[in-house]
Amino acid sequence: MEHGNGERLAVIGAGLVGSLWALMLRNRGYEVEVFERRSDPRTGAVVGGRSINLALSDRGWRALEKAGVADAVRGIALPVLGRLMHAVDGATTYQPYGLPTAPGKFGDPQCIYSVSRARLNRILVEAAEQAGARIHFGHACTALEPDGPHGVELSFKAAGETRPAGPFSRVFGTDGAFSAVRDRMQRTDRFDFEQRYLTHGYRELEMQPGPDGGFRLREDALHIWPRGGFMLMALPNPDRTFTCTLFAPYDGPDGLDALEDPAAAEAFFAREFPDVLPHLPDFQGEWSQHANASLVMVRCNPWHRTDRLCLMGDAAHAIVPFYGQGMNCGFEDCSVLSELMGREGSWSEAFAAYSAARKPAGDAILELALRNYIEMRDKTGDPRFLLQKRIEARLAALYPGEWLPLYSQVTFSHTPYHEALAAGKCQDAIMATVMDRPDIADVWDHPEITDAAIALFRSTEFSY
Amino acid sequence: MEHGNGERLAVIGAGLVGSLWALMLRNRGYEVEVFERRSDPRTGAVVGGRSINLALSDRGWRALEKAGVADAVRGIALPVLGRLMHAVDGATTYQPYGLPTAPGKFGDPQCIYSVSRARLNRILVEAAEQAGARIHFGHACTALEPDGPHGVELSFKAAGETRPAGPFSRVFGTDGAFSAVRDRMQRTDRFDFEQRYLTHGYRELEMQPGPDGGFRLREDALHIWPRGGFMLMALPNPDRTFTCTLFAPYDGPDGLDALEDPAAAEAFFAREFPDVLPHLPDFQGEWSQHANASLVMVRCNPWHRTDRLCLMGDAAHAIVPFYGQGMNCGFEDCSVLSELMGREGSWSEAFAAYSAARKPAGDAILELALRNYIEMRDKTGDPRFLLQKRIEARLAALYPGEWLPLYSQVTFSHTPYHEALAAGKCQDAIMATVMDRPDIADVWDHPEITDAAIALFRSTEFSY
Repeated sequence: MEHGNGERLAVIGAGLVGSLWALMLRNRGYEVEVFERRSDPRTGAVVGGRSINLALSDRGWRALEKAGVADAVRGIALPVLGRLMHAVDGATTYQPYGLPTAPGKFGDPQCIYSVSRARLNRILVEAAEQAGARIHFGHACTALEPDGPHGVELSFKAAGETRPAGPFSRVFGTDGAFSAVRDRMQRTDRFDFEQRYLTHGYRELEMQPGPDGGFRLREDALHIWPRGGFMLMALPNPDRTFTCTLFAPYDGPDGLDALEDPAAAEAFFAREFPDVLPHLPDFQGEWSQHANASLVMVRCNPWHRTDRLCLMGDAAHAIVPFYGQGMNCGFEDCSVLSELMGREGSWSEAFAAYSAARKPAGDAILELALRNYIEMRDKTGDPRFLLQKRIEARLAALYPGEWLPLYSQVTFSHTPYHEALAAGKCQDAIMATVMDRPDIADVWDHPEITDAAIALFRSTEFSY
Repeated sequence: MEHGNGERLAVIGAGLVGSLWALMLRNRGYEVEVFERRSDPRTGAVVGGRSINLALSDRGWRALEKAGVADAVRGIALPVLGRLMHAVDGATTYQPYGLPTAPGKFGDPQCIYSVSRARLNRILVEAAEQAGARIHFGHACTALEPDGPHGVELSFKAAGETRPAGPFSRVFGTDGAFSAVRDRMQRTDRFDFEQRYLTHGYRELEMQPGPDGGFRLREDALHIWPRGGFMLMALPNPDRTFTCTLFAPYDGPDGLDALEDPAAAEAFFAREFPDVLPHLPDFQGEWSQHANASLVMVRCNPWHRTDRLCLMGDAAHAIVPFYGQGMNCGFEDCSVLSELMGREGSWSEAFAAYSAARKPAGDAILELALRNYIEMRDKTGDPRFLLQKRIEARLAALYPGEWLPLYSQVTFSHTPYHEALAAGKCQDAIMATVMDRPDIADVWDHPEITDAAIALFRSTEFSY
């Protein structure tokens, strides 16, 4: 499996994961054809409905490096060093993403990177095409027959006509949360599938640069306005704008449905986010240009069918965006499958090993992302929670390589997500004990606190 | 909404629920067209893949009575009065379904009824057609546009051609676990959907009448051979055959995959069900005529879309067969929606009330059916479990209308499934306390036992 053998492979979807995967397959010498429903992102306008920017972190970078495209991406990546929480009264609290190297001391900062979805997609499509992948834009997959005598047979609707394509030795479904490839798999026996929507949705707003042409808020931070049942976020872009996203329930007096009226939305922002409104001078015009979008989660099992079909990225595991890991998880799918292709004897073995390795990871990052919504919108405004994070940062500084906070494991390590989740639950249980001390606010930095916590942690079975 | 108003309604699927629902709609004066993928069950062979016989119980009967078709069904219904459990050594234990009216005394027996799926379907199709429903067989729904300007627009594939139909004021999806109507709803925003397969499957076998032309096993019982991880069941048919069903995992040395070989299957039956094998003289021939079938569960939400689409039966809630409630639950959908149509002001209100009432019921009967698989294959062979059932029967006899065992609530009452499940969980907790007494096997029929249990039960919030 190390080299192409003249096999014809098809990748359905030339989004972020599909174009990266096509590049990786070309790097291994396979003939690759890519079919994408939308038009070429290098020529036309990007179709909305997805988040405009994304947070790239270590798992994503590793895959980009494997594919040889990390340098090109570095040019469009804006470092984000921490979270800045904004209270209703304007008070702010800053939490660096990176860990201290010793209590109170920081080394090289660890950070995530804000990238534009459209620009990143263009870079990846360009790299895949330059490496020899043939990309057909404007091709919507309308039929897929996995068990054809000579391989997978496909049909596409393109320029108003239905065209057959194939047969292909195998087909990779990288066509997102509403995947046509997975849709076909759903119709096969013993394929588990779930799509579930949050009762909350979101709406994006662009915050333009200030009158001086600069960023209107601190540019190296992810801004959060936690308000309990809902929250506003702002992530900086290299063009000095911020993409602001309101996450809120659809229902209720302050729900997204009630805020459809721009005047009601402005009054809501004036009450809940008074420090933001001055930075959105044409609030009502900007609000009206966007639409509410829903948040879907997809789980399925298995992620492959024989040696013919394989799902990657959102097609296999669409998650909610609250951990900034959707794209990173999809890119990690590429890293893992690429490694397995080099190691396993046959495609069916590689696919089976990939499903077995990645399915629990996908389930775990979905759970983590759901938990992080609660954490971001509710707990980041809670002094006790912030104190707990301070104690955990001390533990990380005192016991490097031993106590690694969950956020760091997810964002800055390559520990499988399900192992990170399990370790994080163990840490949560220990921290609940630590926080139970009535005088914890006074004694939080005393050695007895960290000594007791690490002793408990060492008594558990977890190790990195 | 009491009368038809010349509305044109479509029902997709003329299976058990679809044909009953078409009849109910005709009884209310609506114009009804029914479209069914398969051929007319009155003319052709029944296509397999579904259980051959079904257990009809009180919820089902009530719907048949509402529709005016219960008398016709009584002629094909065979009463089944209890469970007969068979141990490996041939020992049997009998449990009547009905409750004693006083300790040790029985009144009119309560029972379930075995009916042939094919015969029941023919009766219902015939009744719907005689009432004026127009049924189009051999019509597979290929497209559905719910938001057409004049109603729902449909396309069908029939006799090799694609034909449009409609517009219809509204469409009822009664097209089973792999519903085309639900499939279209899955593609709409904020529609939750899940299909999940058990890791166990089943295989049916026909047990012919004995040499004397009579039933080979006791004819008024559901026979169970509980074996822990798997089980065999036999349900009598009016033609003196039994439909035997092996439920087992696919994997493992005794799994369905390994038993694909008829000789391996016969050896397995000889070891596990030695008292059954003599009643299956051409075991290997019979085994080879059937195929393994999988067990799918479907959940979705909501069950309607505006006032145009509504799901009923397996299309909304396909469950596993272990409580004998799949059809009964679908028939109860018809009873409930029919009542709501008489009560609510508009179709959208009736559909919303139906979704709200039936979704928790569907979730509950799925949970109950999953639990009953464990109970039937594992616990019905356990003396402690059988003792617990005896104590519960005493409680039911001593406190009629107060302590109603879960099975009776599900099978012989019209209490919503989710209320029955909640009450059952409360009873379970009380019975766990009762069974904890080390001497329970000796004192089980002493008054102090039932007194303590009913006192605990009365202290909870449940009431019927």
